[in-house]
Amino acid sequence: MDVLEAIMTRRSIRSYTGEIIKEEDLRIILQAGFQAPSAHNFEPREYVVISDRDTIERIAGFHKYAQMLPKAGCGIVVCGDQTKQSEMGFLVEDCSASIQNMLLASHGLGLGAVWCGLYSVKKLTDAMADILRLPDHIIPIGMVVVGVRDREKDAVDRYDESKIHFDRWREE
Amino acid sequence: MDVLEAIMTRRSIRSYTGEIIKEEDLRIILQAGFQAPSAHNFEPREYVVISDRDTIERIAGFHKYAQMLPKAGCGIVVCGDQTKQSEMGFLVEDCSASIQNMLLASHGLGLGAVWCGLYSVKKLTDAMADILRLPDHIIPIGMVVVGVRDREKDAVDRYDESKIHFDRWREE
Repeated sequence: MDVLEAIMTRRSIRSYTGEIIKEEDLRIILQAGFQAPSAHNFEPREYVVISDRDTIERIAGFHKYAQMLPKAGCGIVVCGDQTKQSEMGFLVEDCSASIQNMLLASHGLGLGAVWCGLYSVKKLTDAMADILRLPDHIIPIGMVVVGVRDREKDAVDRYDESKIHFDRWREE
Repeated sequence: MDVLEAIMTRRSIRSYTGEIIKEEDLRIILQAGFQAPSAHNFEPREYVVISDRDTIERIAGFHKYAQMLPKAGCGIVVCGDQTKQSEMGFLVEDCSASIQNMLLASHGLGLGAVWCGLYSVKKLTDAMADILRLPDHIIPIGMVVVGVRDREKDAVDRYDESKIHFDRWREE
């Protein structure tokens, strides 16, 4: 699938067949995550792949927008390492770029995926850090849930000219 | 270009011919930005396209990693609207997803682009907000600099198995 087509047609997919995704597809999705840029090229990202049933149930138990996880192929929690990037904004940006790459790669592979936000909602990051036994310097930023989608979703055009400004802010 | 190829081969490009990018390419890049997901679908992003010479010089004057801007085709500052998304982490994530889409779209169009970080470095966000006359609730998160690249850059493989964990954190 062409990159522009992938960007324009990708949708958040929360409904799956329950099949486990193939190991080679998981590897491609993770590779896509690593390929994202990072500030100063510090690459401060760590990935926790979730496929154990108990871990899945515990995550679905605390995150109300992760209820689809038990029927997905897996979850991938993208974490930022504060010892590699101490500027918190950059850490979030680096992890987010990685997540967006993984969403697009999943779509390109014909899979469905969705981004479940974690940071900066403290009760979500605390619960996830506890379940995954993350050290204090590893901050869970977001989770990609990916699976074999059980239906197609039409593309949506989100372009909005009123949000484009030239050289300085102008209210419409 | 295939989406997976685009993700795997995209590099940060900081060296340009000085040509202005075509209006239709700029529109596709902005469209790609809008197509990124956002938490709760709030779409809290605003875009300021920088092409005025004076504005370009002022930005290059304060941002030491934006020195390539005068030779680029344009800059696009992606801002988050705090009245639409009050959770700052999500606001940064939404803007970052949008920026990553724009970098990939630029690469897909055969252009070169790079992400210049702003948030959360206060002196950078303050200077940018001042130059663009942003209201207080509009936070500049990052700037995409895009142009006609003056050379190719080889792909780099950033995959690192030591950063992949399964179900819980394990140190190597």
